[in-house]
Amino acid sequence: MNVELVCVGTELLLGSIVNTNAAYLAEKCAGLGLSCYFQTVVGDNGERLAGVLRTAMERSDIVIMCGGLGPTEDDLTKETAAALCGRPLRLHEPSKKAIEKFFAHRGTEPTDNNWKQAMLPEGCTVLENRNGTAPGIILETEKARLILLPGPPGELQPMFQESVAPYLAALTSQVISSQTVKICGVGESKAETMVKDMIGSQTNPTIATYAKTGEVHIRVTANAEDRKTAAKLIKPVVKELKSRFGNHIYTTEEDVTLEKSVADLLLANGLTVTFAESCTGGLLSARLVNVPGISEVYKSSVVTYSNKAKRRLLGVKKSTLQKYGAVSEKAAEEMAKGAAAMYKADVAVAVTGIAGPDGGTEEKPVGLVCIACNVKGKSAVKECRFSGNRGQVREAAVSAALALMRRCILEYYSKVTFGKKE
Amino acid sequence: MNVELVCVGTELLLGSIVNTNAAYLAEKCAGLGLSCYFQTVVGDNGERLAGVLRTAMERSDIVIMCGGLGPTEDDLTKETAAALCGRPLRLHEPSKKAIEKFFAHRGTEPTDNNWKQAMLPEGCTVLENRNGTAPGIILETEKARLILLPGPPGELQPMFQESVAPYLAALTSQVISSQTVKICGVGESKAETMVKDMIGSQTNPTIATYAKTGEVHIRVTANAEDRKTAAKLIKPVVKELKSRFGNHIYTTEEDVTLEKSVADLLLANGLTVTFAESCTGGLLSARLVNVPGISEVYKSSVVTYSNKAKRRLLGVKKSTLQKYGAVSEKAAEEMAKGAAAMYKADVAVAVTGIAGPDGGTEEKPVGLVCIACNVKGKSAVKECRFSGNRGQVREAAVSAALALMRRCILEYYSKVTFGKKE
Repeated sequence: MNVELVCVGTELLLGSIVNTNAAYLAEKCAGLGLSCYFQTVVGDNGERLAGVLRTAMERSDIVIMCGGLGPTEDDLTKETAAALCGRPLRLHEPSKKAIEKFFAHRGTEPTDNNWKQAMLPEGCTVLENRNGTAPGIILETEKARLILLPGPPGELQPMFQESVAPYLAALTSQVISSQTVKICGVGESKAETMVKDMIGSQTNPTIATYAKTGEVHIRVTANAEDRKTAAKLIKPVVKELKSRFGNHIYTTEEDVTLEKSVADLLLANGLTVTFAESCTGGLLSARLVNVPGISEVYKSSVVTYSNKAKRRLLGVKKSTLQKYGAVSEKAAEEMAKGAAAMYKADVAVAVTGIAGPDGGTEEKPVGLVCIACNVKGKSAVKECRFSGNRGQVREAAVSAALALMRRCILEYYSKVTFGKKE
Repeated sequence: MNVELVCVGTELLLGSIVNTNAAYLAEKCAGLGLSCYFQTVVGDNGERLAGVLRTAMERSDIVIMCGGLGPTEDDLTKETAAALCGRPLRLHEPSKKAIEKFFAHRGTEPTDNNWKQAMLPEGCTVLENRNGTAPGIILETEKARLILLPGPPGELQPMFQESVAPYLAALTSQVISSQTVKICGVGESKAETMVKDMIGSQTNPTIATYAKTGEVHIRVTANAEDRKTAAKLIKPVVKELKSRFGNHIYTTEEDVTLEKSVADLLLANGLTVTFAESCTGGLLSARLVNVPGISEVYKSSVVTYSNKAKRRLLGVKKSTLQKYGAVSEKAAEEMAKGAAAMYKADVAVAVTGIAGPDGGTEEKPVGLVCIACNVKGKSAVKECRFSGNRGQVREAAVSAALALMRRCILEYYSKVTFGKKE
């Protein structure tokens, strides 16, 4: 069975935004064992939209459209799809109620055009949107199955995960199972080289690598008559990956993020944590705070952007800043030590770097970031050199800091050794 | 004149990589005044590639293809395009020499399949690749102009800038210009209602609204024979939008973000700033730190996640926490006041809320966030109710806090009044 993606939006055609929805959906569909041969982007124009949709429905079994389900007049996806399938739009009472509830919760009033989002094609399956006002829609026609999803990733992704993935999984008699091995502390090209032979020789399961900021995910996907057989096919491949990547694998669970794996380590060992951030400016702390339940071990942190703040709030020595500079392993180490003492935490992590675009020198270029982690008095420091713009350098620094935290906590409890110092 | 993008690559179809080439090319083409109605992604498969290319050449004046120009057997873009246009491939001596030179420079030897990259369609224009071995190609046919570019962004972007942009600029007499009016503090539906009549009646310029987290962008796009005429068409529409949205417009500049507009206000008025964050956990601080040059006014901040930290680091009263709770306007106000005093800043912003998924009650549901802003002792507090998951509530809180900061600073200097208290 094959699937085709149609992403709708003038913003995509103008290049105002990058099409991350296509990448997300493509990855998920591949994980479900669906072949994807075409992705199309088209604007909010009825005629062109209808043309693209007609072609897609002729050549593909399943067409997933995203975007253009908003309340505005520009939004034509649903209207176009319904017209093409000969399904008139009808008011869907539960969706109307959900929209009312959505606005009531915010303490605001829906405007007249919001009701447009409750007008749904006759005979469709409605997918609840817990994070917005546009319900998703499944329309089964003789030619193809049509799935309409809202454009904002924060609405599309949960809806796909909760409603679309189970629907797609139920369509095939074959069971497609996949497991993702998530790796930190190993670069993309190195990881690819390490599994190149496996990718080349495998057909079932297949192996695909995905580069994420500071991480590499390797997805193992098997095709079988039942879940048990698929699991049996996957198991030895994951075992082989484990033997190749060892402790760099932080999880093989689908919904565990790097920050979640770090949070779990802190919680399991009852370790309180604090951060002292300079160039990341709170981004590292914010990543950990995205894990529910973290309040158990996380109490407070500081952002010390200026040198004075580093001295006053963390007790970094004046002589250290003068001799080594604020972006140095020594300063990072003192920041972490100071944070542990001042904010009374078992684990303290400090980040100091040059995010750019200015401030770089030949000796200390833009992208240089020093990270220190202190676990109950035991320090580790890492110097990194990242590329990209200010935002990319900061994101990369956060991922590297999380990877360092994970390594330091594991090493502290002698649960593992990572071999040579990175 | 219109252009269509065809990106070739199995990695795109599998979602292994995000299609940043499409966004890059789309933005560049829009800037050159070319309309782009379609983008397609297709894999390295001769038949499907030919089908997509045939459709594209029928409906568009210019087709830009990227990817699939590599040396391997998988790479079929050039072969498919040449066959479709009836142009046999011939060895192009200068390209062969360039490939030799490229490898010599690296101190390595070309492999046999590298010479495939010097086989170019008869009668094409060759675009030099300074950063790789695949030359770019322009093929002018009766139906359309075909431009083939290598896939790696490090090769594609310089080639586009140096060779393709001048070629395209010379083709068009029309110019497309656009200006974006960026609004905060007004919801998407409300904004849409406020400009509905304008969207309906305008054809040149056109008006489109884009919903962002906590913001709405309205893009005004005009089509004219030259830049000056386009600007003249855009001006009265932007003026009308300004009269409708007033001080809620934070910029009409393409590259100014909400955090940049806040940073500019701080810098222009010489106001130092600090943050006291609870549920956002550093995300608000991190947004401001993404603005280069902010160190001038931003020195330090705290994340006070626990009640104890709110008391110890910010001086929030025990009685306040007991009587009103940590998520209350009163607590937010004391957090901001305390931060201003303890971290010595002219502007202090505090955020405290329930990001979920747990911790909500009937009276204080998940999504409730209280934000306080203190400008030189003058306080303003706002209670918000956001929907979505933990991450979305936190992102929305950050945008609302930035909007409140902006309003408070402007009001402090009596530069504007926002009418009724929001």
